[in-house]
Amino acid sequence: MSILSSSLCPSSVRVTEVGLRDGLQNEPRVLVTEDKLRLLNALYDAGLRRFELTSFVSPRAVPALADAEELVVAAHGLDGAHFSALVPNLRGAERALEAGVDRVVLFVSASETHNAKNVNRTIGQSLADFEAIVARLAGSGVEVDGAIATAFGCPFEGEVAPERVGQIARRLQDMGIGDVTLGDTTGMATPPVISRLHESLTRLAPEVVTTLHFHNTRGLALANVMQGLALGIGRYESAIGGLGGCPFAPGASGNLATEELVYLLTELGYETGVSLEGLIQASQLASRLIGRDLPSQVAKAGPRLKRHARSSVATASS
Amino acid sequence: MSILSSSLCPSSVRVTEVGLRDGLQNEPRVLVTEDKLRLLNALYDAGLRRFELTSFVSPRAVPALADAEELVVAAHGLDGAHFSALVPNLRGAERALEAGVDRVVLFVSASETHNAKNVNRTIGQSLADFEAIVARLAGSGVEVDGAIATAFGCPFEGEVAPERVGQIARRLQDMGIGDVTLGDTTGMATPPVISRLHESLTRLAPEVVTTLHFHNTRGLALANVMQGLALGIGRYESAIGGLGGCPFAPGASGNLATEELVYLLTELGYETGVSLEGLIQASQLASRLIGRDLPSQVAKAGPRLKRHARSSVATASS
Repeated sequence: MSILSSSLCPSSVRVTEVGLRDGLQNEPRVLVTEDKLRLLNALYDAGLRRFELTSFVSPRAVPALADAEELVVAAHGLDGAHFSALVPNLRGAERALEAGVDRVVLFVSASETHNAKNVNRTIGQSLADFEAIVARLAGSGVEVDGAIATAFGCPFEGEVAPERVGQIARRLQDMGIGDVTLGDTTGMATPPVISRLHESLTRLAPEVVTTLHFHNTRGLALANVMQGLALGIGRYESAIGGLGGCPFAPGASGNLATEELVYLLTELGYETGVSLEGLIQASQLASRLIGRDLPSQVAKAGPRLKRHARSSVATASS
Repeated sequence: MSILSSSLCPSSVRVTEVGLRDGLQNEPRVLVTEDKLRLLNALYDAGLRRFELTSFVSPRAVPALADAEELVVAAHGLDGAHFSALVPNLRGAERALEAGVDRVVLFVSASETHNAKNVNRTIGQSLADFEAIVARLAGSGVEVDGAIATAFGCPFEGEVAPERVGQIARRLQDMGIGDVTLGDTTGMATPPVISRLHESLTRLAPEVVTTLHFHNTRGLALANVMQGLALGIGRYESAIGGLGGCPFAPGASGNLATEELVYLLTELGYETGVSLEGLIQASQLASRLIGRDLPSQVAKAGPRLKRHARSSVATASS
């Protein structure tokens, strides 16, 4: 039995680019808005249409995203593009509404310790905030999604019970939020953890549609995508070049690289509408802008069927 | 349906460490035998027992492996360790026999262009050589395996027909060779290519037991392992740290990293007998010896449940 022949595999896959948000927020070099727009345009030219652009958080907490309003306003006008932004509270939601995003993503951690460090709230307080935000945005035309960070494990608390994630998803479902991203914040997802989490969500929050957001911190991101596909999950988030990092693992990889995700999906036969060559160009631009080598491998090696001259070197190898 | 519940998944998995051979042969820095032995001991201490130690090829062609005899002789005495070496021809086989390996691996490419560049022979000439080697080693106690390089694609010719690989495997089977490694020489394997190749081998060489040898050149190595497991394939080769490189992709990753393979297998519930912590130490030693950062991610990030102090930094993230 091949994964590809699994009857559960999704018929199509949706990719959301989060490089401008999750990719940039932990990078030491802060990009000016104009450079973010250059990168956005390169990603759009490659065929991507769904972008998580920024977070409406405190500029003091995340200086790299301090231009949230300016970026969202400047991004308007890309035909067919869909822009979302993270918001942690009502104030963030109002800023996002005013700037004109298509969608806000309300985020909470599955572990109390991470949520406290991240947004200085208990999980219960965050969820209460979300109810106020949903009420505030009702009728505004702005869609509301949820995101659960540390869903696959917490760097402070260790394992996170799948039931806890399922219960938070249920609270979101009860607020009318239909799309929920499971964030692998520090790269703790593994195929069995994904299966257990999927089972919990299917049981506790059956109306929620799941998006998977993996980090390649321990090298498993694409193996985890394979598991997600085999479970029938068809929505993924990734960041061009594998931008980003993990505050707890200096030198480790950041997000799953968009070009590696699209390379795998294309080879599996999915029509993503995205050009691998275009993504590799965008990845090279991201690397120049951020001033460091990025971890994406396919961006260095090029497409699979790239031919080499017979005069090239080769040594006895297998 | 989860990959893990596939009825075809192997009940156990065998890992062969090829870092000392495939990992080192393309590295610019040549290790002295004493340093290779330090690395071998660290890998042994981590729990690995199967090693592809070296190649008995021309020292002029592969200077990094010029100490083949010396290394094999010096490696004797590690209790329970099993040592193999690549040999391209009868002369190589005689050198390997004299040095005292447990097993020789006869290697040929699936594409004529690569075989000509690699060993200056046609595929037919290589296979004829193999028959002479098998006859020469009969009764010696040395086992004989096969390896087919460029099995998943050729950097010069592009796609390689699965039937061609199956036919070569059949020739090896007819010589009495039961174990054949499929080498992803320049990182062109993808899940569907693995499925097609597996189908071809099952049909054309049904007695052959397959080992998969992936390179992470385009980031897919562990996704490919997932596919291999789903197809029931239970033997894999990898190199500590992701040592090695691709002569056609400067800066790209080399072999699948052993610690990432073992991390995935352990999380999937396989008993490998290998310590991830021990492998991470061996990986760090390999990095120091070879004088560069190695691509393995889990070696940088550490085990999944490594806890971080609550006073650590964190920024609003998902």
